[in-house]
Amino acid sequence: GLGRVWLVGGGPGDTGLVTARGRSILAQADVVIVDRLGPRALLEELSPDVEIVDVGKTSGNHPVPQHEINALLIQHAQAGSDVVRLKGGDPYVLGRGGEELSACRAAGIEVEVVPGVTSAVSVPAAAGIPVTHRGVARGFSVLTGHDGAAEVPGGADHTLVLLMGVTRLADTAAALVTADRPADTPVAVVEDGYGPGQRVTVGTLANIAERAAEVGVRPPAVIVVGAVVRLSPSWPHQAR
Amino acid sequence: GLGRVWLVGGGPGDTGLVTARGRSILAQADVVIVDRLGPRALLEELSPDVEIVDVGKTSGNHPVPQHEINALLIQHAQAGSDVVRLKGGDPYVLGRGGEELSACRAAGIEVEVVPGVTSAVSVPAAAGIPVTHRGVARGFSVLTGHDGAAEVPGGADHTLVLLMGVTRLADTAAALVTADRPADTPVAVVEDGYGPGQRVTVGTLANIAERAAEVGVRPPAVIVVGAVVRLSPSWPHQAR
Repeated sequence: GLGRVWLVGGGPGDTGLVTARGRSILAQADVVIVDRLGPRALLEELSPDVEIVDVGKTSGNHPVPQHEINALLIQHAQAGSDVVRLKGGDPYVLGRGGEELSACRAAGIEVEVVPGVTSAVSVPAAAGIPVTHRGVARGFSVLTGHDGAAEVPGGADHTLVLLMGVTRLADTAAALVTADRPADTPVAVVEDGYGPGQRVTVGTLANIAERAAEVGVRPPAVIVVGAVVRLSPSWPHQAR
Repeated sequence: GLGRVWLVGGGPGDTGLVTARGRSILAQADVVIVDRLGPRALLEELSPDVEIVDVGKTSGNHPVPQHEINALLIQHAQAGSDVVRLKGGDPYVLGRGGEELSACRAAGIEVEVVPGVTSAVSVPAAAGIPVTHRGVARGFSVLTGHDGAAEVPGGADHTLVLLMGVTRLADTAAALVTADRPADTPVAVVEDGYGPGQRVTVGTLANIAERAAEVGVRPPAVIVVGAVVRLSPSWPHQAR
């Protein structure tokens, strides 16, 4: 018979931040399809006969294109395997989970999405930054750094979280300066949230690109823009 | 000696969507402080000598005010207990986690935030709605329904998620109609996500308040506004 597919949100990388359901589904998988953003340490717990397929980008190589990932999910399920697509964060937060779900359904494969702890909220938290905070920020927006960030207005009391934005940080920071969001709006770049290389670089829209370049910030990183950044222990002169 | 405090994001309500770390910390608590939004079924797994303090709103009663919750956390930790504050969703997504953290720190209590699966993303997912989807929505914003929703522009390709917005749905829906976001923009109201009473009501900014009133929508519910709502199986005439 056909296998099934689960799109599992693996959380920000810390193995403790996978959901109980995600973990138990993973433990029953025949095939696990991973990329560089999922909590890869979980793979070490798997039975040795589980097939692990790595579709992640590695330096110097290209990642497997999305349509090929979709095809892999379908092929393995059609061959009778139960397949887990282990994703970083949450499958529906800029994770292309919806595309994978549609592709599987179109092929007649049963598929379920298991939500995860999104990096958009948890990676800022790892740096001591709450995306909302009474009297500081009443809401937040999540965008890629590549497009659209400048189209979401809102003052410093509305937090912006940018995923996949490191390579275009200079352009994005410049575009974000508006009448409502001045050049001295605080910014934090959080690299490798919860990982061994976690590092927080803070600055303002005016100087964050320069500071990030100085310390050699690299993806994966989450960028947070707004007054909440001042609540981080990494922000200088904080009072608490 | 002093106890410690953990602010644990319990996820949207399904016991499988608590993180592994949240679950293991909960299992070691002396005192658990809960409200109506946390995954209360988890409490049944606790040892009978764990003290459970309910600070939730019940019909006809008022909830415990935030400053009293802060004081409870501190008092129990000062008395030597390890305290878990079990919260719905994620502590930092309109969950007042930052206030509880600050209060504990100011009192000299060690406190840690354990991120959770936010209802803002997972409750829409329970209704088959991805907050982002290639070609449909490139980002999303999370706000309360009470304030600020109308201040976040963006067309139907930017998803709005409103928490705690059911009681003011008519006002909010009217305020959200702008040049970029027409009155026929799809809206879904998802009640009791993952719970036994999960129900999805769909409509448009023009008619959602009337439809919600017709079926008697009640909190807790998550409101999703944008083209992604059409991807839900609850949307009529969908093609997939």
